[in-house]
Amino acid sequence: MLLHPPPRFVIRDLVQRALLEDLGRGDVTTDATVPPDLAGRAVLVAREALVVSGLDVFCQVYAEVDPRVSVERLTEDGAKLDRRAIGARVTGPAASILKGERVALNFVQRMSGVATKTRAFVDALPQGSTTRIADTRKTTPGLRALERYAVRCGGGHNHRDDLSSAVLIKDNHIAAAGGVRIAIERARAHAPHTSRIECEVDRMEQLREAIDARADVVLLDNFDDAALGEAVRFVAGRALLEVSGGVTLERIPVIAATGIDVISAGGLTHSARAVDFALDWES
Amino acid sequence: MLLHPPPRFVIRDLVQRALLEDLGRGDVTTDATVPPDLAGRAVLVAREALVVSGLDVFCQVYAEVDPRVSVERLTEDGAKLDRRAIGARVTGPAASILKGERVALNFVQRMSGVATKTRAFVDALPQGSTTRIADTRKTTPGLRALERYAVRCGGGHNHRDDLSSAVLIKDNHIAAAGGVRIAIERARAHAPHTSRIECEVDRMEQLREAIDARADVVLLDNFDDAALGEAVRFVAGRALLEVSGGVTLERIPVIAATGIDVISAGGLTHSARAVDFALDWES
Amino acid sequence: MLLHPPPRFVIRDLVQRALLEDLGRGDVTTDATVPPDLAGRAVLVAREALVVSGLDVFCQVYAEVDPRVSVERLTEDGAKLDRRAIGARVTGPAASILKGERVALNFVQRMSGVATKTRAFVDALPQGSTTRIADTRKTTPGLRALERYAVRCGGGHNHRDDLSSAVLIKDNHIAAAGGVRIAIERARAHAPHTSRIECEVDRMEQLREAIDARADVVLLDNFDDAALGEAVRFVAGRALLEVSGGVTLERIPVIAATGIDVISAGGLTHSARAVDFALDWES
Amino acid sequence: MLLHPPPRFVIRDLVQRALLEDLGRGDVTTDATVPPDLAGRAVLVAREALVVSGLDVFCQVYAEVDPRVSVERLTEDGAKLDRRAIGARVTGPAASILKGERVALNFVQRMSGVATKTRAFVDALPQGSTTRIADTRKTTPGLRALERYAVRCGGGHNHRDDLSSAVLIKDNHIAAAGGVRIAIERARAHAPHTSRIECEVDRMEQLREAIDARADVVLLDNFDDAALGEAVRFVAGRALLEVSGGVTLERIPVIAATGIDVISAGGLTHSARAVDFALDWES
Amino acid sequence: MLLHPPPRFVIRDLVQRALLEDLGRGDVTTDATVPPDLAGRAVLVAREALVVSGLDVFCQVYAEVDPRVSVERLTEDGAKLDRRAIGARVTGPAASILKGERVALNFVQRMSGVATKTRAFVDALPQGSTTRIADTRKTTPGLRALERYAVRCGGGHNHRDDLSSAVLIKDNHIAAAGGVRIAIERARAHAPHTSRIECEVDRMEQLREAIDARADVVLLDNFDDAALGEAVRFVAGRALLEVSGGVTLERIPVIAATGIDVISAGGLTHSARAVDFALDWES
Amino acid sequence: MLLHPPPRFVIRDLVQRALLEDLGRGDVTTDATVPPDLAGRAVLVAREALVVSGLDVFCQVYAEVDPRVSVERLTEDGAKLDRRAIGARVTGPAASILKGERVALNFVQRMSGVATKTRAFVDALPQGSTTRIADTRKTTPGLRALERYAVRCGGGHNHRDDLSSAVLIKDNHIAAAGGVRIAIERARAHAPHTSRIECEVDRMEQLREAIDARADVVLLDNFDDAALGEAVRFVAGRALLEVSGGVTLERIPVIAATGIDVISAGGLTHSARAVDFALDWES
Repeated sequence: MLLHPPPRFVIRDLVQRALLEDLGRGDVTTDATVPPDLAGRAVLVAREALVVSGLDVFCQVYAEVDPRVSVERLTEDGAKLDRRAIGARVTGPAASILKGERVALNFVQRMSGVATKTRAFVDALPQGSTTRIADTRKTTPGLRALERYAVRCGGGHNHRDDLSSAVLIKDNHIAAAGGVRIAIERARAHAPHTSRIECEVDRMEQLREAIDARADVVLLDNFDDAALGEAVRFVAGRALLEVSGGVTLERIPVIAATGIDVISAGGLTHSARAVDFALDWES
Repeated sequence: MLLHPPPRFVIRDLVQRALLEDLGRGDVTTDATVPPDLAGRAVLVAREALVVSGLDVFCQVYAEVDPRVSVERLTEDGAKLDRRAIGARVTGPAASILKGERVALNFVQRMSGVATKTRAFVDALPQGSTTRIADTRKTTPGLRALERYAVRCGGGHNHRDDLSSAVLIKDNHIAAAGGVRIAIERARAHAPHTSRIECEVDRMEQLREAIDARADVVLLDNFDDAALGEAVRFVAGRALLEVSGGVTLERIPVIAATGIDVISAGGLTHSARAVDFALDWES
Repeated sequence: MLLHPPPRFVIRDLVQRALLEDLGRGDVTTDATVPPDLAGRAVLVAREALVVSGLDVFCQVYAEVDPRVSVERLTEDGAKLDRRAIGARVTGPAASILKGERVALNFVQRMSGVATKTRAFVDALPQGSTTRIADTRKTTPGLRALERYAVRCGGGHNHRDDLSSAVLIKDNHIAAAGGVRIAIERARAHAPHTSRIECEVDRMEQLREAIDARADVVLLDNFDDAALGEAVRFVAGRALLEVSGGVTLERIPVIAATGIDVISAGGLTHSARAVDFALDWES
Repeated sequence: MLLHPPPRFVIRDLVQRALLEDLGRGDVTTDATVPPDLAGRAVLVAREALVVSGLDVFCQVYAEVDPRVSVERLTEDGAKLDRRAIGARVTGPAASILKGERVALNFVQRMSGVATKTRAFVDALPQGSTTRIADTRKTTPGLRALERYAVRCGGGHNHRDDLSSAVLIKDNHIAAAGGVRIAIERARAHAPHTSRIECEVDRMEQLREAIDARADVVLLDNFDDAALGEAVRFVAGRALLEVSGGVTLERIPVIAATGIDVISAGGLTHSARAVDFALDWES
Repeated sequence: MLLHPPPRFVIRDLVQRALLEDLGRGDVTTDATVPPDLAGRAVLVAREALVVSGLDVFCQVYAEVDPRVSVERLTEDGAKLDRRAIGARVTGPAASILKGERVALNFVQRMSGVATKTRAFVDALPQGSTTRIADTRKTTPGLRALERYAVRCGGGHNHRDDLSSAVLIKDNHIAAAGGVRIAIERARAHAPHTSRIECEVDRMEQLREAIDARADVVLLDNFDDAALGEAVRFVAGRALLEVSGGVTLERIPVIAATGIDVISAGGLTHSARAVDFALDWES
Repeated sequence: MLLHPPPRFVIRDLVQRALLEDLGRGDVTTDATVPPDLAGRAVLVAREALVVSGLDVFCQVYAEVDPRVSVERLTEDGAKLDRRAIGARVTGPAASILKGERVALNFVQRMSGVATKTRAFVDALPQGSTTRIADTRKTTPGLRALERYAVRCGGGHNHRDDLSSAVLIKDNHIAAAGGVRIAIERARAHAPHTSRIECEVDRMEQLREAIDARADVVLLDNFDDAALGEAVRFVAGRALLEVSGGVTLERIPVIAATGIDVISAGGLTHSARAVDFALDWES
C-alpha cells in the first residue's frame, strides 16, 4: 500500500510551531554544558513493539534545528518494529541533536501511537474481510493532517476530512430539516456533485427512508449485532454501511462478520496512548 | 486554589487554527439542511465522571463561529462533574451551534481528559502529603499552554515550560560536560540567576556530587523505593528531589511516603484518554 | 435558496491582508486633507445591471478600518440589481469611509463579477432544466472561498473544493495507472468512502470502461453534441455526467438539452470581468 | 527593459498560501493512482498567442511541492509567445508534477493574462509615443505585487503602490478640504517630501487651480478629446497629465496623440481574461 | 497639526506579538499573588519632561490583555508633558493591569523617546523656519510604522516609507549606472510617475548634473556650511534640497539658516533614549 | 565564553518581517539603475570602536534577499572591533547587496549597540569581581531574543526571559497579597519548582522578612551604598542580591564592591545608541 505523507509545507509549519514552543527562547542547559564542536550520534529506538509513523516529521524537526544534523532512515512509516528495533540514526553536532530531541520524539511517539492502535483494530478484522477501519473528525486540534496520515500508516482509512468535504447528516440535522428524506434531498440539491451523501440513522425505519431517498452511505447508530445483520441484508449493496460509536477491539470481528463496510472509531485519534520511542546515544 | 487560564490571545490563536482546519471551507451539511433562522439550545453534558478543563476555550470557539451564540457556564474549570452533570448551556442559531460543536468538544474532551487523569494521580497521594504531581515537556506539539493549564485544573503543578525557563541537566549533558560537577557549575555560570539548576542522577554517587555542587533540584532516575528513602535522608532538604519515569498510579503513595518533593509524569499529557463530554440538544 | 457565506474568520483574514496591502502604511492623502471630525455618507451604487455578491466582505472591510463606520444593507447577496440601484449605505467618519473604499470595492466588484457571469450561464439553461452550472479549481490563488461563494450567489454550484475532497481521475492519472478501470479501482480502494469517484474520458470506449468500473461521475472531454447524447443514453443514470472545457454561453442550452447533469466552466472564476460598483457620496 | 520580479519572500508567501488552499489536505487522486517512482516530463505550452509573466512564481510552486522537480525555462517574462510555443519544461516525479499543476497554472494564466492585455494597450500607442500605459490600485486583493509586475511584463508602468506612497487628491478630498488649492497645500505640508502631489480635476477651471497650486501631476476626469488637447496646451509641461476611466483600446491612440503623459486603466488588472497556458505531458 | 496613528490592524498585530513575547506563557507571579477579584487603579506618569506618543498602542495592549481594563486618556499624542504630569488613568482588575504593564510601558517609553528627541530637533529650528526635520529608514526592524508616527508626534516629517515609495539614488547607484545623469534618467523612465526622484551628491559638480537632469530632490552629502549656502543659491528652487548625516542639535540652526528644505537624521529613530514613563498605583 | 545565538527559525522570522517592511514592494531605485549582472563586493566596517553582535542576523538577511550573495565572516559576535576594522565581506550581485543593505545594517547597528553598551558596564566592574551585569524585560517589543543575545555578546547575563520563567514579586504584588511573607509563600506554592522566587524590597525590614520567607533572590530597590553593604552582610549568602534602577556606569564599581551578586539595567536594551557600522564598497 502506498503511504503519502502530508505535503512538506504542512509538516514544516507544524514543526516550526512546535519548535517555537519548546526551543524558541533557546536551551539554557545545552548552551551552558555542551561544547559546540562536540559530535554526537544517536538512534531512535522502539522501547516497545509498535507501528512507525512520522519519520518525515522527525527529519523536518532536525532540518529546522540545524541542517548539519543528518537523519538516516532505517525503516519506513507503516512498518512494525519489535522492541529494541532501531528506526533511524541521527548524526551531527551533539548540542543540536539534544535541542531537537523532545519535539522530535513528541511527534513520533504520538503519531506512532495512533498508527499502532489503528493497526490493532485492523488486525482484529477477520482474514479477508473487506470492512474498513476508519478515523473520524475527533482529532487533536491543529494536528488533523498528521493523525489522519498516522491512521493510514496503521492500515486504516480516512473518513471525510472536514465539514466541507462530504455530507454527513446527523440527528439534529434531521430534526431541523423535518425528516430523513427531506434532509437528504436538500443535501443532494446543494452539495457539490462530487460529495457523497451520508446519513446517520438510529432505527430500521429511518434506514429504509434513507435508502429510499438514495443516500450513498448510511451510518448505523446504536444497532445491535442482530440489527446490523438485518440492515446489511435490507440494504443489499444499495448504499455503503458504516458503524460508529463505542467500538471496542473485541466487537470488531463481530461487526465485520455482518458485512458492514466501514467501522469508524474516534478513539484511534482522541485516545491513543503515546508509544515509547526513545533517542539513545551511541558512544 | 486559583486557576488562571492561558492568555486570551493564546487561546484565540489556537481556536482559530482549529476552526480553520474543520470549518474553514464551510459546512455543506448544515448549510443545506438547517434553516438559518432556527433557534437551538444544547447542553454540555458529562457522560462519565470527570474533572472539567477548557471552558474558556469552549466559549472562544463559539465567539469565533458566531457572536450570537451565548454560552452560560454552569460549572468551572477544576470542578469534578458526575456522570450526566451539565457543564454549560449553549443558546443561539442552531446552525452555528452545530458548526462549532466538533471543535469545541475536541478541545474540552482532551483538556478535561488531562485534568481527570491528573486528579487521579493527585488523589493517590497520601492524606496531607506535600509531594507535588507535575507534568513534563512531553505535551502535544502546539498545545502545551492548554495542557499545562489542564494539569493545574487537575490539581497538579507545572514543570519548566520550555528549554529556556530552567536548567535540567540530563545524562548526555553530563557526558558532554565531563561530569556532574562541571555541568552544574557551567550551568550556574551561564544560566539566568533566576533559574534553578536541576540535575538528573542515576546513582547515589552522582547524587552526592550534585548536592556537593549545590544543585537546586535533583531528578532521581531509576531509583528503587529503598534508594529513594536513602536519597531523601542524605539530601535532608539541601535540594528538592524529583522522581520521574514510569510512575504508575499504584506507586504514587509509596514514592510520596519517602518524602520526595515532586513526582513528574509525561503520561499526564501524552497519553491521557479523552473524556466523554457531549453536546445534547434541548427541545 | 440559502446562501451561506464563508466563515467569519476566513473573511476577516482575507480582509486584513487586503487592507495591509493598501492601507497598511497609512493614507497620506486623506490624513492631510480630510478633517477627522467630518461626517460622511455614501452609497454603494450599481453602475450597470449586476448580481450582488460580497456584502459580508464589504462590511468586514469597514469593521476593520473603523468600527464607527456603519453599513446598512439595502439588498442581499444573490439579488439582481438594475443600473443605478443602491446596494448599501455607509455612514461614519468621512476619512474612514475614504480609506476603506478601494479595498471594499475591489472585493465586491470582483465577487459580483463572478456572480453576474454565473447568473448569465444559469439563465441560459432551458426552462426547467436540472443541469447544474458548476465552477472548477481555476480560481484566483488565495480567494477560492470567496469565488466559490460568488458562484453560488449567481445560482451556480460548486465542484470539489480542493485536491483532497473528491477523486477526479484525468488522462495523466489514467496513463500512470495503466487504464481507466485500474485507476478507478485504486481510487476506490484508497480514497475516503465519503468521496465520489469521478473520471475524465475522451471517447465512448473509455466511458464504457468507466461505467463498468462503477465511476460515480464521468467527465466527458471533447465530446460533440451527438456524442453527448449517445453518452447520456448509454449511461442511463448509472453515473452523473459532466461536461467541461470551452463551454460558451451559446452552447449551454444545447448541452443541457442532451440531459447532461453538470456543466463546469473555469471561466466563471478565472476570467470574469469586474462589474461596476461605485461608492457615491451623499451630501 | 529590465524586469525585476517581486522579492523571493513575497512570492514564496503567496505560493504557500495558494498551495495550502488546493493541496494542503493532500491529493487523493494522485496518491491513489500514480506510482511514487514514476518519472514525468511536461511542457508549459501557450495555447494562444500571449505575453509571458510569472515564471518565478511557476518555479516557486514546484520548489515548494517537491524540490526534486526541476523547471527549465525556455523563455522569459515579458516575451511574446506564439500559439503552441513552449515556455518551460518540467521534469521530475510525475505525482509531484500533477499535484502542483493547477496552482502553477492558476498563477501564470492570470499573470500572463494581465501582461497580454497590457501589451495590447501599449501596442496601441502611436509609434514613438512617450505616453505611458499605467495600472491602478484596482488589483486583486492580496495579489497586487504580482499584478503590478505583470503590468510591467506587458510594457506598462505602475501607478502608486498604495495609499501611502504618493498623494492622489480626488473629488471627495477636495470637497472635504474646501477646494483644490487648499487640498494641494495641505498635502504638500504633510506628505513626505519624496511624494509627488497628484490631483484629480473634472473641468478646466479646476485644472487651472491645480496648476496654480503647483500640483506635480493632474488627473483629468471626464475630459473629451478636445478638452484633453486644451489641457495639454494650457499646462505646457508644468505638470504631468494623466487620463483615467473608461479607456478603451480604440481611444488610446487618440488620447496619446494629444500629448497626455499617462493613461491609467483599472481594467488591466481587474478584468483581464486568463490566457490559455497548459501543461502537456511528453511521453 | 493632525496626527493620524497607524491603522488599527497594524497596531493590533504589533501589540499581539509583544504580548506573546512577554505574557504568552502566563505570569507566574501575578497568578500566584494577586486575587483575581482585586480592583486596581493606576496612572501613567511622566517622570521627566517629554513629548507623548503611543497612547493608541497603550490602550490596545490593555484591550488585548483584558477588555475589562479601561484606559482614560488625560492627554494626547504630540503633547508636551511636564515631569509628574499624568497621561492616562488605567482602571480594572489589578492582576490584568500588572500583566500588561511592562509591554505597555515598553511601547510608550520608546515611542515617546523618539517624539521627545524629534521635538528637540524641531525646536532647534529658527523661528519661522520652513525647514523640515525628517526621519530616515534607519528604524527599528518591525517597528517602522510606530517610529514614523512618533516622529510626526514630535513635529517632524517622514521621509520615504520604504525602498518602493520613492527613488533615492546613492553613490553606489550612480557608480553602477555610470553617472548622475544616466541614473536619474533611468529612474525617471522606470519609476512610477507618482514618485519623486531624489539623488545624493557629494560635490557641486554632481549637484549641477543632478539639477540639469531635473532631479526633484537633491541630498547633499558632506557639504560644509559654505557649500550648503552655495548649493541653495545655485539651485534656486529648481529642486528640494536635503541634508543628512551626522546632524547634531547644534548644527540645525546653521543648516536651516542656509535655506535647506529638509534635514533628515537617522538618530531620531535608531538612537533615541527611552523616556521615563511609569505606571503608579493609586490607592 | 560560549555565545549561542537565538534559534535559526527565530532569526529567520524576524528577518523576513524586517525585509517585508523595507523591501516587500521592491526597490525602485536599484531596479532602475543597477544592471542585474553587475557583480559587487562590500565590507562591513566599524566606523567607531564597538563590540560585534548580530552576524547570524546579517547573514540571514542576505540569505533571504538573494542566495547568490555570500557573506564571509572576518570576526565573530562578542569581539571588540577597533574603528575601521572589518567585520565581514559581502560578495554577489550588486543589486542584491544594495537591496538588503539597510535592513542588514539596522539589525547589526542596534544589536552591536546593545553589546557595546553592555561591555562598557561589564568593563566597569572591579578586576575579579563576580558581580553580574544583567538585562531586564525593558526590551524593544518583538526583538527580545536578539537583544538578550546582544547583552550576552557584551559579556552580560540575562534576567528572566518573560513573565512565566521565574517569579519576581514587586511592590504591587506585595500590597495585593498582604505582605512580603505571604506573597513569597503563595509564589512558592504555585510556581513551578524549577523557578527561583525573587522578591523586590525597599527597606531592611522587608529584606529580613524576605530572607525569613526563604526568597531565592532579593532585589534591592532604592538602597544607598551603605544600605547595600548592610544588606550583603545581613544576608550572608542565604539569597542572591540584585540591584536595579538608575544604575550608571560610575556607580557600578561601588555597587560591585559591596558584594552584590547582580546589577540589572534596563538601559542596556531600551536606551542603547546604535553604533556606526557601515557597508563600504570595494572597487
